[in-house]
Amino acid sequence: MGKFITFEGGDGSGKTTMIKKLSAYLEDKKIPYLMTREPGGIDIAEKIRSIILNPEHTTMDARTEALLYAAARRQHLAEKVIPALQNGVMVLSDRFVDSSLAYQGYARGLGMEEVRSINEFATDHLSPDLTLYFDISPEQGLARIAANQGREVNRLDMENLSFHDKVREGYLILAKQEPNRIQIIDASLSQEEVFCSLITKLRCVIEDI
Amino acid sequence: MGKFITFEGGDGSGKTTMIKKLSAYLEDKKIPYLMTREPGGIDIAEKIRSIILNPEHTTMDARTEALLYAAARRQHLAEKVIPALQNGVMVLSDRFVDSSLAYQGYARGLGMEEVRSINEFATDHLSPDLTLYFDISPEQGLARIAANQGREVNRLDMENLSFHDKVREGYLILAKQEPNRIQIIDASLSQEEVFCSLITKLRCVIEDI
Repeated sequence: MGKFITFEGGDGSGKTTMIKKLSAYLEDKKIPYLMTREPGGIDIAEKIRSIILNPEHTTMDARTEALLYAAARRQHLAEKVIPALQNGVMVLSDRFVDSSLAYQGYARGLGMEEVRSINEFATDHLSPDLTLYFDISPEQGLARIAANQGREVNRLDMENLSFHDKVREGYLILAKQEPNRIQIIDASLSQEEVFCSLITKLRCVIEDI
Repeated sequence: MGKFITFEGGDGSGKTTMIKKLSAYLEDKKIPYLMTREPGGIDIAEKIRSIILNPEHTTMDARTEALLYAAARRQHLAEKVIPALQNGVMVLSDRFVDSSLAYQGYARGLGMEEVRSINEFATDHLSPDLTLYFDISPEQGLARIAANQGREVNRLDMENLSFHDKVREGYLILAKQEPNRIQIIDASLSQEEVFCSLITKLRCVIEDI
């Protein structure tokens, strides 16, 4: 089985930039990998995601949304992630279950344990070997987003700062619950420092990186 | 709160015919009610259901499907069922959680307790006051479907007889687990006898019916 590594963090944490740098690094080193993020081009998962993100769906219930995220996750896992892992390929995923726990479970108040239960059904208890959480204050994160004009703004972006504070609090609770799996990276540092920290953490699960 | 009553049964059990007869009966008696079935005209739930039933989706994972049913269920509950119950209206639903437990949980082998967990999330533990299960042998049920040319045939219909045997077995297990909530009606009898049995059972939860 390949290693399964996930990347988590609030908007503006620099997660996407780091993922791009890591892709270039892995290609340079000729290490085979699959980089993905839900819904990941999987037709059924894309259709589910488009229901979630449709701005007309103002009556969407928070539990419906959490179930739809879990459904898209399952299909992405079944069609893309699990086959790659079974072929021995390392899979890197931009966001996974912890996003649902921090956003829906904690920040939206559905309850982390409740949201965990539907996600355990979705993943059939498949857990990442390593999760890197890019930690940054919401103020600094949202300032980065505002500066980045090229990025599409979606419904989640429009939630207020206190929501993002709750998201961060949720991630930090999860990191305390699973300190071995979830490694915190200080994303307020320079790109070079953050990337160095990322590679160091990855060496704990992938020796030859 | 209004009473919440659900109708369950395999294809060809005569459930739909009985629901029509009951509607006419309630209108005649001027008893207010809401008759529904998921996705029940709720836009978001209809869109979710169309993903499930799309015949192009041959790669649909069984867990994805169960999560999508739970998501459509949640939205239908949130927008239609719960508001009616809160207004004191009796709600009658053609199928509910037990369908997922019998079909996905038991017959498809996902596990009834696993499927129950995602449905408890979807319903937030709202349970029907009464569930009427129309029990019939799959042979007799499918013979009725074949005779009924007007009915649209969907993917589930095409599953084989042994699948429908499993569905029935699942329902009977559920009825044993919750003998007070789930009442079994012998659907092999004549329409008059089945309807009489239905009204008798309904009187246990609605006195003036």
